[in-house]
Amino acid sequence: MKYIDFPKDRDLDLILIGRVAVDFNPSPEEGFKPLSQVVKFERYIGGSTVNTAIGVNRHGLKVGLIAKISDDQLGDFCLDYLNNEKNIDTSHISRAKNGEKIGLTFTEMKSENESSILMYRNMIADLALDVDDIDYDYIKKAKAILVSGTALAESPSREAVLKAISFAKRAGCKVIFDIDFRNYNWKNKDEISIYYSIVARQSDIIMGSREEFDLTEKLIVDKSLNDEESAKLWFEENAEILVIKHGKRGSNAYVKNGESYSIKPFPIKARKGFGGGDGYASAFLYSLFDGKEIIECLEYASAEASMMIRSNSSSDLPNTEELEEFIRESKKEYGEFVARGDLK
Amino acid sequence: MKYIDFPKDRDLDLILIGRVAVDFNPSPEEGFKPLSQVVKFERYIGGSTVNTAIGVNRHGLKVGLIAKISDDQLGDFCLDYLNNEKNIDTSHISRAKNGEKIGLTFTEMKSENESSILMYRNMIADLALDVDDIDYDYIKKAKAILVSGTALAESPSREAVLKAISFAKRAGCKVIFDIDFRNYNWKNKDEISIYYSIVARQSDIIMGSREEFDLTEKLIVDKSLNDEESAKLWFEENAEILVIKHGKRGSNAYVKNGESYSIKPFPIKARKGFGGGDGYASAFLYSLFDGKEIIECLEYASAEASMMIRSNSSSDLPNTEELEEFIRESKKEYGEFVARGDLK
Amino acid sequence: MKYIDFPKDRDLDLILIGRVAVDFNPSPEEGFKPLSQVVKFERYIGGSTVNTAIGVNRHGLKVGLIAKISDDQLGDFCLDYLNNEKNIDTSHISRAKNGEKIGLTFTEMKSENESSILMYRNMIADLALDVDDIDYDYIKKAKAILVSGTALAESPSREAVLKAISFAKRAGCKVIFDIDFRNYNWKNKDEISIYYSIVARQSDIIMGSREEFDLTEKLIVDKSLNDEESAKLWFEENAEILVIKHGKRGSNAYVKNGESYSIKPFPIKARKGFGGGDGYASAFLYSLFDGKEIIECLEYASAEASMMIRSNSSSDLPNTEELEEFIRESKKEYGEFVARGDLK
Amino acid sequence: MKYIDFPKDRDLDLILIGRVAVDFNPSPEEGFKPLSQVVKFERYIGGSTVNTAIGVNRHGLKVGLIAKISDDQLGDFCLDYLNNEKNIDTSHISRAKNGEKIGLTFTEMKSENESSILMYRNMIADLALDVDDIDYDYIKKAKAILVSGTALAESPSREAVLKAISFAKRAGCKVIFDIDFRNYNWKNKDEISIYYSIVARQSDIIMGSREEFDLTEKLIVDKSLNDEESAKLWFEENAEILVIKHGKRGSNAYVKNGESYSIKPFPIKARKGFGGGDGYASAFLYSLFDGKEIIECLEYASAEASMMIRSNSSSDLPNTEELEEFIRESKKEYGEFVARGDLK
Repeated sequence: MKYIDFPKDRDLDLILIGRVAVDFNPSPEEGFKPLSQVVKFERYIGGSTVNTAIGVNRHGLKVGLIAKISDDQLGDFCLDYLNNEKNIDTSHISRAKNGEKIGLTFTEMKSENESSILMYRNMIADLALDVDDIDYDYIKKAKAILVSGTALAESPSREAVLKAISFAKRAGCKVIFDIDFRNYNWKNKDEISIYYSIVARQSDIIMGSREEFDLTEKLIVDKSLNDEESAKLWFEENAEILVIKHGKRGSNAYVKNGESYSIKPFPIKARKGFGGGDGYASAFLYSLFDGKEIIECLEYASAEASMMIRSNSSSDLPNTEELEEFIRESKKEYGEFVARGDLK
Repeated sequence: MKYIDFPKDRDLDLILIGRVAVDFNPSPEEGFKPLSQVVKFERYIGGSTVNTAIGVNRHGLKVGLIAKISDDQLGDFCLDYLNNEKNIDTSHISRAKNGEKIGLTFTEMKSENESSILMYRNMIADLALDVDDIDYDYIKKAKAILVSGTALAESPSREAVLKAISFAKRAGCKVIFDIDFRNYNWKNKDEISIYYSIVARQSDIIMGSREEFDLTEKLIVDKSLNDEESAKLWFEENAEILVIKHGKRGSNAYVKNGESYSIKPFPIKARKGFGGGDGYASAFLYSLFDGKEIIECLEYASAEASMMIRSNSSSDLPNTEELEEFIRESKKEYGEFVARGDLK
Repeated sequence: MKYIDFPKDRDLDLILIGRVAVDFNPSPEEGFKPLSQVVKFERYIGGSTVNTAIGVNRHGLKVGLIAKISDDQLGDFCLDYLNNEKNIDTSHISRAKNGEKIGLTFTEMKSENESSILMYRNMIADLALDVDDIDYDYIKKAKAILVSGTALAESPSREAVLKAISFAKRAGCKVIFDIDFRNYNWKNKDEISIYYSIVARQSDIIMGSREEFDLTEKLIVDKSLNDEESAKLWFEENAEILVIKHGKRGSNAYVKNGESYSIKPFPIKARKGFGGGDGYASAFLYSLFDGKEIIECLEYASAEASMMIRSNSSSDLPNTEELEEFIRESKKEYGEFVARGDLK
Repeated sequence: MKYIDFPKDRDLDLILIGRVAVDFNPSPEEGFKPLSQVVKFERYIGGSTVNTAIGVNRHGLKVGLIAKISDDQLGDFCLDYLNNEKNIDTSHISRAKNGEKIGLTFTEMKSENESSILMYRNMIADLALDVDDIDYDYIKKAKAILVSGTALAESPSREAVLKAISFAKRAGCKVIFDIDFRNYNWKNKDEISIYYSIVARQSDIIMGSREEFDLTEKLIVDKSLNDEESAKLWFEENAEILVIKHGKRGSNAYVKNGESYSIKPFPIKARKGFGGGDGYASAFLYSLFDGKEIIECLEYASAEASMMIRSNSSSDLPNTEELEEFIRESKKEYGEFVARGDLK
């Protein structure tokens, strides 16, 4: 592979470590309105990590999940759902034993441009992931592990992730860091920077928004960096690829050899202001594992992000055929270079 | 009044202290099925205390609530809902300020006879009620306070309730104890008995199931009591009226003067195995405040309990007209003494 | 017995529930100075409950202790010490198993009139006493239990004490409440009043300072009571004897039959401003069990309190012979009625 | 400097981050006996970090301490003590504000060869050090910071240390890691390895026992390493000097240029089995800052370690003159090469 050398001959392409959650979205018939007025809800599997797992799996990657879910019917629902996907190994999803509950996300969709989420994350199952859940023999089955920054927010999940990274290094797995900042469970901004930077320093691929990179770099540098400066900083550590997202303006990718690329969003009618990141990560990683050029990876990522923002559910991720169909249609409508070019 | 002398000339009939929560019930179209398979949910206000508040209010009592709710959109929903009721004073419902969330109850309805609930009660807003939320001047506005046993499960709510009882005694308010046992948040059975018995000892009216009385009396006596023995025990303390429920078999009421009465359930087709208790309490307390005979209080209570078990939502409580209509219809169909007589 | 009917024919006179601790006192050679300048310390057993246990034992009462100590060498020291006393049953002193440490008290003696204490009470062994440590068969071996208010400051010790009181009531043991307020571990003043008043309501004998009674009565009455009003209040509950202390001014005792008595301190040269309370309780309870008149109980109590304030160590409690010798000497020097008469 | 380039022209040689504690040692007159039988104690300042600060200061280094102490008389004692030392800057020692107490260490000296410690470390002041206590402008005043592994055992001290290391890197300070393992406050062995290895990876000088290096390397390598392998491992990260101690057998030092050196202990009559490490670190660091050859640094370190094991108090550290006098005397008695040569 051109940009990064994943190890060969492993049972799994990717093991993801992080959050399995349940989303309660307003039923489509509710339309746009404040959450306090919504009566009818639909229940979906959710959580950035699980969405990315589903996403790359639908593109054909073989994935495993290391996660902790609740020992109740909502945990059952998630496990059943994942077991029904074709290539998701759930053998390392364990049950929380001290009454920790699976995280809930209630989505509020006030208009196309105003959406928010209400999270239940007190004594949450995913952050009860423990060092004892991390198994060297399992990790060395994978070409790479993907670590979600949210899993660093509290002990004991924080230490479970740090242990998994040590094992990944020892086993020759690549480490992918999806910063995925959520303003929950963290005690202060310094803590965020401390743990994000520990993980970033050991990561081969780092993906995040400009704000997430700023959070990560807060204690390390004395001023906010631009994307190029961030790339330089992390390439001096272990990073080989950096992806920095700028919301509706688009995103940039940097490769250790010095190349850089930009992509813009595909035009769509938004249902909500979130959910795009998981689609982005899914398509980008699939494309990268598939050996595509970075600019293609970005195009696929941007397209899948747009598809997800249009959708009512964050777990309704497309397969490759659907994604490519969307790209074709968009290009037919808006022109071949609809998403190419520097950030808006 | 015959059985109990409520103080006269107070602004409120009843102040209830306890749980405001949100219920997520399967939409009727989901029918009976395991919770893990339900996709569509409907959101209601819930929690035993709030249901009883709504229930007695619909019968015309003037009520206040002392409660803590979350500082988010689900808290907004509950407050809006209560403010839309005619005679519920919400001036002493406060917002939790440390990220505590309002309790959630997901109901599972597998069949007419198999139902269960899945609760979210970690770091819960209602148990964050604090001694500073208890205001003497407010309590002395009421003829009686109703205390829910669930509010005793953890500090600081536990101490808030105990403070409210001290103030009620000082202010000449009657104390009504609705034992309302929930197997959440309690650390062990001794703890339950300790706090239930502290409150029972100071209560004028105690309502609970046989199992709840057993829990209350566990440390005080060396064997399980029958209903008559329980009545004797608590009449030696402060109690004037005891109501002991036996589920589908019916319930017994005891009055300090030595009288006792029994009632059976009204025949209905059940939607779920719970929710009846709040209807029972609502109608019993309304009837008692209204000066009815105890046997009538029981009949109204039993009828409203049956109506609620039939309903999809625990907050869909009837007004007096609807309740009396149900009683008339039932008697027309099953005979005047459909619910009278000793326990089944 | 005249004032209170202890049950007959029990193996133990008194079971005390509360605090075993270790005191570090400046060596006598250090004289009076700020604690921050003291280098040489002497180690003693301490804690109000254990001191009272030692005190009454030295007067000949057969006592048991229900207590939790640390599982380390300081715990060993305390257990060895108590096992060397003649009639202290230590069978129900258990070891804390989760790293809780035995409480430490560093005493500061700046001058005869200025002394203070510095306490180590974080994650403390005594407050780890648990409902499982309370054994009905053990409690019914005693004529009375003595409960220290300090043991109510935190769970799970709080519930252990409340369980013990339930068992004492069931077993016909008298309940003695030594309010013993320490400004540690309590969350707020309402909490203090709540738990003190719960215990006071069930107690046969209540002993405390005027300030401690004020704390106890804070939520129950709308103004501070004087001693007579307090006596009236608690005699309407279960109390038969009340002892209310006023520091250097002396103390008052009230008996349910309406009698009241006063005593003043014996003149001594003080080493420190504390430690008197344990001596007071020891002599008062011994005298009461011994069947003495209340005024004599008070005189013995006041004398032993004075002896203890003179001493360098709070566990250096006198036997009856030494106490009576002190009384004789004091009367010889200061007159027969040295301590008699109303408060100064 | 030959082995490591400390930055020039800074106000302070070394800032130490870690534990200030109080030691209670049996008075010399108590001799050797179990701790449970000791009555007379002497109070000293203690804690590995503070001892090392005192040690290097007595050799003439200018040092600062970043530490959290209790807001009570024992905290006063420590601060007074440090302010009386010549060149210790205490401006960044702050007071714990939530009732955290300063750590206590009771030393047990059963014989020359049997000693142990009993620690009070529940809700301890030193581990309440917080990210807000870490000040970039202060850290850049120093040539190096020394981090104690004990300070990593719990949040928020853990994050304070990690923040300080980030700042040290940014400010061009060298990072010295004194592993200093204490089996307190840590939750499990994986956690120890995780945080020790995070710090070790960023450190310029690492000092610890063979067992401490094993703990650090546990998750990184699949077998226990020998000293040479450890040196190779950490020189591939940032380390320039490694010191690995083997207790009574002696110690080894490795320098990045490939050189290695060994030293043995100086013969003495032991008072206790601990306290040597702080003396070792003090003399080693002083010598290194002073520009001595590594073999000399080791000899000074070994000599001061032996002096400290002989002493009753861990804070009774020698100045350079006293240390050199000890070395001269030892060599006179046992020969010039008394401590030279490979490990015993």
